[in-house]
Amino acid sequence: MHNSDPLVIEIGELAAIKLATSQFRTASSTLVGPGDDAAVVGLSAPSVVITTDTMIQGHDFRLNTSSAFDLGFKAVASNIADVAAMGAKPIALVVSMAITRETRVSWLMEFARGLQVGIDQLAPDAAVVGGDLATAEQVFISVTAHGDLFGSDLILRSGASPGDQIAVCGTLGKAAAGLELLEHPDKSLAKSYSELTDIQLRPIPPLATLFQGLDGITAMLDISDGLSLDARRLADASGVQLAIESSKLLGFAAVLEQAADSLQSRDGKQRDPMDWVLHGGEDHSFLVTLAPGVSHRGFKVIGSVQQGSGVLLDGKELAPSGWDSVSG
Amino acid sequence: MHNSDPLVIEIGELAAIKLATSQFRTASSTLVGPGDDAAVVGLSAPSVVITTDTMIQGHDFRLNTSSAFDLGFKAVASNIADVAAMGAKPIALVVSMAITRETRVSWLMEFARGLQVGIDQLAPDAAVVGGDLATAEQVFISVTAHGDLFGSDLILRSGASPGDQIAVCGTLGKAAAGLELLEHPDKSLAKSYSELTDIQLRPIPPLATLFQGLDGITAMLDISDGLSLDARRLADASGVQLAIESSKLLGFAAVLEQAADSLQSRDGKQRDPMDWVLHGGEDHSFLVTLAPGVSHRGFKVIGSVQQGSGVLLDGKELAPSGWDSVSG
Repeated sequence: MHNSDPLVIEIGELAAIKLATSQFRTASSTLVGPGDDAAVVGLSAPSVVITTDTMIQGHDFRLNTSSAFDLGFKAVASNIADVAAMGAKPIALVVSMAITRETRVSWLMEFARGLQVGIDQLAPDAAVVGGDLATAEQVFISVTAHGDLFGSDLILRSGASPGDQIAVCGTLGKAAAGLELLEHPDKSLAKSYSELTDIQLRPIPPLATLFQGLDGITAMLDISDGLSLDARRLADASGVQLAIESSKLLGFAAVLEQAADSLQSRDGKQRDPMDWVLHGGEDHSFLVTLAPGVSHRGFKVIGSVQQGSGVLLDGKELAPSGWDSVSG
Repeated sequence: MHNSDPLVIEIGELAAIKLATSQFRTASSTLVGPGDDAAVVGLSAPSVVITTDTMIQGHDFRLNTSSAFDLGFKAVASNIADVAAMGAKPIALVVSMAITRETRVSWLMEFARGLQVGIDQLAPDAAVVGGDLATAEQVFISVTAHGDLFGSDLILRSGASPGDQIAVCGTLGKAAAGLELLEHPDKSLAKSYSELTDIQLRPIPPLATLFQGLDGITAMLDISDGLSLDARRLADASGVQLAIESSKLLGFAAVLEQAADSLQSRDGKQRDPMDWVLHGGEDHSFLVTLAPGVSHRGFKVIGSVQQGSGVLLDGKELAPSGWDSVSG
């Protein structure tokens, strides 16, 4: 086993990077890829959208729950969602990571394959153009993703106006339900609800649906920390109040009910699927506001924008209950 | 003390990011700065240069040797050197970092100040445009830097031809000497040679000098892992042989002799300053090849490019002895 699957530290940084890089395809925008001091990426116009996000072992993931492939896929998904939430198409990623002295070459290769498959499925015009590999006492994955607007207007969090509709593109609560299923001692539960655990392990931000519906979006963000917290961010940035109707969220909750019941049958603890819908992050769906009268396939209207501040659910203040990656 | 200087986890991610961000200035290229899903950076033309580098506590730095300010400054220096080594001017940085449960707000503020002072001194047209803050069991600092060629030609590692001159822009060996001084038990040594330890703690890649001498550079890289290793990379990428003359390196070694003697007087161990010059990294100077006949102020010619492969010192093979961040 040792001979056929050495540790990364046994083969060294350069050999490991060469192996990992062999998993990557270039994109048409990749003018200079990995191997020089820096990469060079071509754009359709002289501006670039940039976002960065980090996943840390023991905080954002556990190695016994997430495979290397899952982590690569998820690192792509979470970052390209932030690019798309500006109205831009992802074109290039750089990946800084630390592995440990125990990390095997096969793990690193699977991680790299997860990155490339994530790109192939979610953002086929993008490529990994560079990166950095080091050792640490825990695994650390930091991706910086870059986007090109390709002539579309930039969509900020601050563009919502009273009278706009509030809509969600993508799922809500599935990743949160999936996390509870994955963390439950009864491992058969996670297997029974693989559609939910898959969303937690390998989220699928609906970029194709989003890009077909960009017209009329006035404000947008990636729901990474939960609807209640991210809606507040949009409301604050736009200086408006978001009035959400719980009746419009019932469809999101309905598909989670069976999992909630199964969890309760194991531990007796009652769960309201609506809590996952309102407060669960990591589906990497998009919260948007739409100009009045606009409707798009795949966008579910959940309320309306009003004068005021904060977020209401059925007329009452919806307190955020999302994730704070430092104090949480 | 606790009240006036709380822990970062006591005030939470959002408050900590707000405080750190208050240290940053925007640049004219910053179209959208921190606070949305992603930043947007304007360019002079439709291409962007991208590089990323990570520093990890216990591997790349120690908190009892490097101050928070030093680390911020160094994170800027090491990344903008890679941008400049492509011939591009740094315009935007994103900073992903993890702090620990013991990190104080004052430390994070000093780190952010170090980032901004580094930018002010080394790349005044750049800005921190975004980032990400998390907690971990050790401090991680990952910076992705972006550059704009502003009409200059891209300079790769692969452009050297036989007949070119080899030159260095910047210092050699000072950071390596500084590291040995900092790690010596006799702390008075580091104080006596602060010019050397300062280069280790807060390297100053000579961007202004470099940008005045871009004409005629045929290949370039940032010397981050030592001349012997980085020269080999340039030789490999260009398919040429680099013939370096030790007589041309004597000036770099001479300024390190007194420090070598002082170290020897403490521990009896003899040091050859030329080892620091040949194999020490982290000065973040630039190794370039120049077309025949070209000379620039601040560039020291150290040899010539020939047909063949590898690196020679006075006609004999120069074995690389640089840093491998994974197996090293």
